[in-house]
Order: sequence, then C-alpha cells, then structure tokens
Amino acid sequence: MILGRVIGEIHGTIKHRFYEGKRLLVIEKDNGDYLIAADSVGAGADERVLVLDEGNGARQVFDSKDGPVRSVVVGVVDDVYTD
Amino acid sequence: MILGRVIGEIHGTIKHRFYEGKRLLVIEKDNGDYLIAADSVGAGADERVLVLDEGNGARQVFDSKDGPVRSVVVGVVDDVYTD
Amino acid sequence: MILGRVIGEIHGTIKHRFYEGKRLLVIEKDNGDYLIAADSVGAGADERVLVLDEGNGARQVFDSKDGPVRSVVVGVVDDVYTD
Amino acid sequence: MILGRVIGEIHGTIKHRFYEGKRLLVIEKDNGDYLIAADSVGAGADERVLVLDEGNGARQVFDSKDGPVRSVVVGVVDDVYTD
Amino acid sequence: MILGRVIGEIHGTIKHRFYEGKRLLVIEKDNGDYLIAADSVGAGADERVLVLDEGNGARQVFDSKDGPVRSVVVGVVDDVYTD
Repeated sequence: MILGRVIGEIHGTIKHRFYEGKRLLVIEKDNGDYLIAADSVGAGADERVLVLDEGNGARQVFDSKDGPVRSVVVGVVDDVYTD
Repeated sequence: MILGRVIGEIHGTIKHRFYEGKRLLVIEKDNGDYLIAADSVGAGADERVLVLDEGNGARQVFDSKDGPVRSVVVGVVDDVYTD
Repeated sequence: MILGRVIGEIHGTIKHRFYEGKRLLVIEKDNGDYLIAADSVGAGADERVLVLDEGNGARQVFDSKDGPVRSVVVGVVDDVYTD
Repeated sequence: MILGRVIGEIHGTIKHRFYEGKRLLVIEKDNGDYLIAADSVGAGADERVLVLDEGNGARQVFDSKDGPVRSVVVGVVDDVYTD
Repeated sequence: MILGRVIGEIHGTIKHRFYEGKRLLVIEKDNGDYLIAADSVGAGADERVLVLDEGNGARQVFDSKDGPVRSVVVGVVDDVYTD
C-alpha cells in the first residue's frame, strides 16, 4: 500500500456508472510520482492518506463487484512514527 | 489509476477477437513514460485522460469475461485542480 | 516478493473493519523507496522482513475474503546469504 | 499494455507443461528496460509488438486455466502514429 | 516475466505453512534491482532464471489455492539469444 498526500482533484467525463458521485483525488507519493485514487473517506486537501492500489480490494471498499477501479484512498494518516 | 495524455495511436495485427474494432492509444504519463491503452470513451489526440491499469476492471468496462486487456482509457479529464 | 526493513509505523483513521487491531508498518526497500504493509508476524522496528505485495495472497494471510489489503509482512528475515 | 521490440529469445529448462512448445521472447521497452513474454503471434526478431502484462488475460490468450504466465505478445505493431 | 540471476538466499521465520520446506531466493534483475522469489526448480547460485511475478500463476506452480506467494522461479535459462 502507499502513503501519499492529497494534492488535488480531477474533474472530467467518466462515463462508467461506478464513478457517479465519486471524487477522484490526485495523490502525490514521497518519491515525487503521483497517482489518481477514488476517495472513500472524505480526505481533504493536503492530508496524508493511505492508498490501496489493487483492484479486487478496491472494489470491496465500494461494495462493487465490477467497478473499473484500482486505487482507492482507504484512510487518513495522523502520524507516521519512524525510528 | 493514471492521469495521462493521448499522444498517438497504434495500428497492427492483433489477432485476438477482443481487439476487433477497438482503438489502441499511446498514453504519455507525466513522468515521461508511456503505456498502451484500449479506448472506451472516444478520447482524441492530445486530450488528458484517466487510465485504469488493471485487468479485471478493464474487462468489465468492455463487458468481456476473457479479454486479454489490462489498460483502458475510462474517462476524459477536463480539469485538474491542485492546491 | 520484497525484502525490506521496518522503519516505522503509521497511525490514522482507517474506517474499514479489516484494519481494526492491525498494525501498519512503514517498510523501506533497499532501493530507498518504501511501502506500507499490514503486519502479520509481530515484526519490530529495524527488523528485516519479507513482504508479499499481492492482494489475493495478502487476504489469505488474514483469512479474509474481502479485506482491502495488498501488502503484508509475512516473515522476519534472519539472514541473507549472498554469493 | 506495453509497446516493445523483440530483441531476442531465451532457451532453457522450464519444467511446467504450460511452456512446452512455446517461445519466450526478450522484449525491450522504450525506456531501456526489458521483460520476457510468451509469444502468441509468431513475432520475429526486431518487430515492434504489443505485450499484455497481466496474468488472467495472458492465460486466456492461451486457453489455459492455470498456466504460470503473466506476459504475452498479443500483436505485431505496424505503425505508431504520434501527433 | 523477469529474467534474473540467483545471487543469494534468505533464511528466516515465515510462519505461514505454505513456506515450509521452500527456498526463498534473492534474484537480481539486469537493472540492478532485485526481488525475492520462491524456488520451484532447484535453481542454484549464479544461475540465470525466469521468474514469474504474479500471484495466481505462482500459486498454480505450487498446486496451492491460497499460498501467500507472488514471485516464483519457474525455469533455469541456458541461453539468451539477442540479435
């Protein structure tokens, strides 16, 4: 799974019914890359988040059998303790 | 999922029936890499698009049980709001 | 699979029931990247660990059919013999 | 999916019955990396090819339920039109 | 799939029954990265090997329905013919 930060949101025309009403967040990873993930927790701008990047698990989060989704924000991270 | 830009299209001999009539787009990612994705939305040259890069979800988009596909353009992106 | 080292732990609000009572570890890979993995073995700080980074197998480790998980620490590594 | 070029072929001892009679091609990607893919179309040396890099779809190409395969050459690319 | 070289072996405490009696090899890829893969062919030190890096196929190699495994050495490579 991936630790990232919400740096934006995309708006567009996603025809598939799965995406109706869902927010698509731009997530920056610590190595500078980023990815797009569907929000499941109401994550806000600049928050650190945990992203699950795997289709079958992502569909489960949304109780969807056939949603075309791979990446989903599953939690907001409060603290990262490193040694 | 991946945010990319349509930079081209490939033509060739893909024998599998799944690919009959489907467009295969060349998608450039922001880090300079690119990938090939089947079009499901009629995306045009130079448009920013959302790409799903996962087999089971990609097959669902095309109502296919067994299509040999992993990457599919699922939407056209109008705006990317970053903070 | 991935050989990594436990360099921290994240605390946050993961709403999904799957994550109740589970530790989320920050794992550093040898190339400097890192990932987040659920712990299944009680791995401690600075220990070298084996990480499975695949959803279906990760769910099996936790006897979960639908857990939104992809990465799991499946073992503690005592020695790495290289030639 | 990946656009690549056939730069070689590997010979060896792959015990699993799935690989009997199958060619294993060395495919170079445009970023300089390469991967190994099973051939399904009779791709020749130096040809540009489309590679599917996903297990379930790859197995479908070979009508296999349980083949240990992830990457398969699914087509020969004649032209890449870029804008 | 990945062409790599066996550069070592890891020993440790992998609690899951799947790993009982299995060797875990350190595989170096040509780009300098490496990964850990379960051995299915008796690969020895310094041998070039073909690695399957996909869970469902990897489980099939070991006739396992639920093994927490993603990467497996499926063959020893004798020659790589490049053009």
